[in-house]
Amino acid sequence: MNSLSEQTCEACKVGAPKVSDEELGGLLKKIPDWNIEVRDNIMQLEKCFSFKKYTESVAFTNRVAEASEQQGHHPAVLLEWGKVTVTWWSHKIKALHKNDFIMAAKTDQLYQN
Amino acid sequence: MNSLSEQTCEACKVGAPKVSDEELGGLLKKIPDWNIEVRDNIMQLEKCFSFKKYTESVAFTNRVAEASEQQGHHPAVLLEWGKVTVTWWSHKIKALHKNDFIMAAKTDQLYQN
Repeated sequence: MNSLSEQTCEACKVGAPKVSDEELGGLLKKIPDWNIEVRDNIMQLEKCFSFKKYTESVAFTNRVAEASEQQGHHPAVLLEWGKVTVTWWSHKIKALHKNDFIMAAKTDQLYQN
Repeated sequence: MNSLSEQTCEACKVGAPKVSDEELGGLLKKIPDWNIEVRDNIMQLEKCFSFKKYTESVAFTNRVAEASEQQGHHPAVLLEWGKVTVTWWSHKIKALHKNDFIMAAKTDQLYQN
């Protein structure tokens, strides 16, 4: 089985299955540094990435944006001096879809590159 | 007198003067579409910019980032699908400085370009 970061997002439509409680624990173990946040009753994956230079924060933001266009799944990216906070959730189902875990794993790889 | 957007930021140090109550009204009139938000007792200028294409949101984010590097003053930029929310405040004085109004006016210009 491919690692999460090597998988691709499937089209997520209204009514698509959200990640079940049984799946959640296993998926979270694969992206251990990501936090669960709940906003407006919507579960989200969030992680803050630190940078010494602002230009590096901007470059990372662009890499995440490019990957999100490729996969057709777009996060909230908060660009600030010294840090970038990335938040993934699936707007159409107002919950976490497996796509979000795939994109979180890809985001980690983009930070390392 | 130059318009706000043509002015440049001055170095903002701890103890620099925040915008006074008297100045606030006049400055806000020059950037009428910006909202005042107060978070953690810090007054901030915030505006949401809409885009039809994600790539346009990303390009705008980069223009704002580039201008902020040029002026040495960095905002919070929240990049999402369809919109970019820009928030200006002066970290060192935990308040609004005239720099923030200058940068808000420049941000409006970057949206029009």
